[in-house]
Amino acid sequence: MALRVTALAGGVGGAKLVDGLAAVLPPGNLTVVVNTGDDFDHLGLRICPDLDTVLYTLGGIANPTTGWGRDHESWNFMASVKAMQGADWFQLGDKDVALHVLRTQALRQGMTLSQFVQRVSHSLGIRVPVLPMTDDPVPTVVETEEGDLPFQTYFVARRCEPKVKGFRFEGASHARPAPGVLDSLTRADLVLFCPSNPWVSLDPILAIPGIRQAIASRTVVGVSPIVGGRAIKGPAAKMFRELGLKAEAIAVAEHFKGLVDGFVIDRQDQAQAEDIQKMGIQTLVTGTVMHDGAARASLAEDVLNLAGTLLEMETTP
Amino acid sequence: MALRVTALAGGVGGAKLVDGLAAVLPPGNLTVVVNTGDDFDHLGLRICPDLDTVLYTLGGIANPTTGWGRDHESWNFMASVKAMQGADWFQLGDKDVALHVLRTQALRQGMTLSQFVQRVSHSLGIRVPVLPMTDDPVPTVVETEEGDLPFQTYFVARRCEPKVKGFRFEGASHARPAPGVLDSLTRADLVLFCPSNPWVSLDPILAIPGIRQAIASRTVVGVSPIVGGRAIKGPAAKMFRELGLKAEAIAVAEHFKGLVDGFVIDRQDQAQAEDIQKMGIQTLVTGTVMHDGAARASLAEDVLNLAGTLLEMETTP
Repeated sequence: MALRVTALAGGVGGAKLVDGLAAVLPPGNLTVVVNTGDDFDHLGLRICPDLDTVLYTLGGIANPTTGWGRDHESWNFMASVKAMQGADWFQLGDKDVALHVLRTQALRQGMTLSQFVQRVSHSLGIRVPVLPMTDDPVPTVVETEEGDLPFQTYFVARRCEPKVKGFRFEGASHARPAPGVLDSLTRADLVLFCPSNPWVSLDPILAIPGIRQAIASRTVVGVSPIVGGRAIKGPAAKMFRELGLKAEAIAVAEHFKGLVDGFVIDRQDQAQAEDIQKMGIQTLVTGTVMHDGAARASLAEDVLNLAGTLLEMETTP
Repeated sequence: MALRVTALAGGVGGAKLVDGLAAVLPPGNLTVVVNTGDDFDHLGLRICPDLDTVLYTLGGIANPTTGWGRDHESWNFMASVKAMQGADWFQLGDKDVALHVLRTQALRQGMTLSQFVQRVSHSLGIRVPVLPMTDDPVPTVVETEEGDLPFQTYFVARRCEPKVKGFRFEGASHARPAPGVLDSLTRADLVLFCPSNPWVSLDPILAIPGIRQAIASRTVVGVSPIVGGRAIKGPAAKMFRELGLKAEAIAVAEHFKGLVDGFVIDRQDQAQAEDIQKMGIQTLVTGTVMHDGAARASLAEDVLNLAGTLLEMETTP
């Protein structure tokens, strides 16, 4: 019987693996819980980058080159904003902006983020339940040597240049998991930490009260977002180094020690497998770079196999 | 010496004549006061159709075919809204939506509509002061045989089909003219009623307290929006008929009797000139259909000549 999986995901890497899981799991066996710490208001619009990347990817309308944003996108909105001297440091495509406008309107009318995501998922024909980690605002603040920066200011406006000292998820302690999140985690055979940034994609999810507790008794598998000492996408490796850690798969495993039962690393990092294994974490070495749909599905299968082994070990006396 | 002109304008016809005036008058001699009765909230965005048509036209970025909207426009935003089952009855181009997003943000941040229009005018290199009639909301309600309809519902969603019984400008009695409006009218040598819809473009402006009084002592010239029994654009002719009036240039002159000193009609309506003249309104017959920039400037010159004659008559004992 197919496993019930709840995946915790950030943006591009998370979206790709979730897409692979959706391809190999029966509908109804997969739920995605998405980081909303990156969400922010820009040009008066509410923007949820990770949620949108997951929705676009599962809806089959993501930009295949960038992994985020819409396919066949045009940029006349942005050019027009710029011509009118509006803020143009955050790129919004013409198709993409429609989602932000509809969301901003819905939230202002009193709809929750969860409800809006559900409505859009339905419109886009997405059958996998996509859940924001919370409907409450929990903005990630990046503590840098230049002071505290809102996440998108650090990430986009400042291109991750300021040296990182730490992270804060504002309001997390009072936030409630979005409807369905705890329920789906509690019922999951496997909780998957997607290959997303540990610091700013997965930690915000884990900071929501109740989520750590809900996964404590679950079988948890993580996939390293760091391959060959580099992040496939984004600043994860740079963050590890700036925090005085090695930017290696094993550092990610170390970060999640006590939470993950299994860990998937890339063949390039095979040499680290033994040390991760010594931490009491069942380690699988495979190809983790998802160049295409087949690679997404293949990694999903590998993850499920590792989870199957772990679950079998649990039930074997 | 060139006249100081303040033009009262609605959308396309008004914008074209104002553009003609801008071409023949020295900078500083022209001010435009624009109808905001058509303004409405749509998809959570504040949309001001007449103001935008005037801004795009004076900025040289209007769609030359439609007369409204942006040139070289694309429609990916709208397609994306539709795909997500958002409201798609009001067309918003990708470039156009940038203006609505920026305006919505500015208004929410406490900027007035006037201030926003000034900022955008500056960005677009528009040297003619463009003033909304008021910064207060004064939505036009169309009283029809099917009941009261918000203007854009009547105009766009219902394609002007419901039979008109009357019009209401909600909140007009408490609205204040936008900063600069009364001042510009009081200082004008000529107040021009552009060839805009009398019922839903010019009457809303005249409904703002203080505006009628300010123009009472001014030389006022109107240009008929009805040519050969038809409106060049929009439902003006249909409205006249449904209100039991003839859809003719003379009916427009009759509508503004007591306000206008001079009136400009098209050659097609030459037969009505004598009767308009008998109403005590100095009438000029010329080509009023503005097919191109030259026609805009030419009509502007005709209007200024008529105004010159009227002003001379006033000062001649």
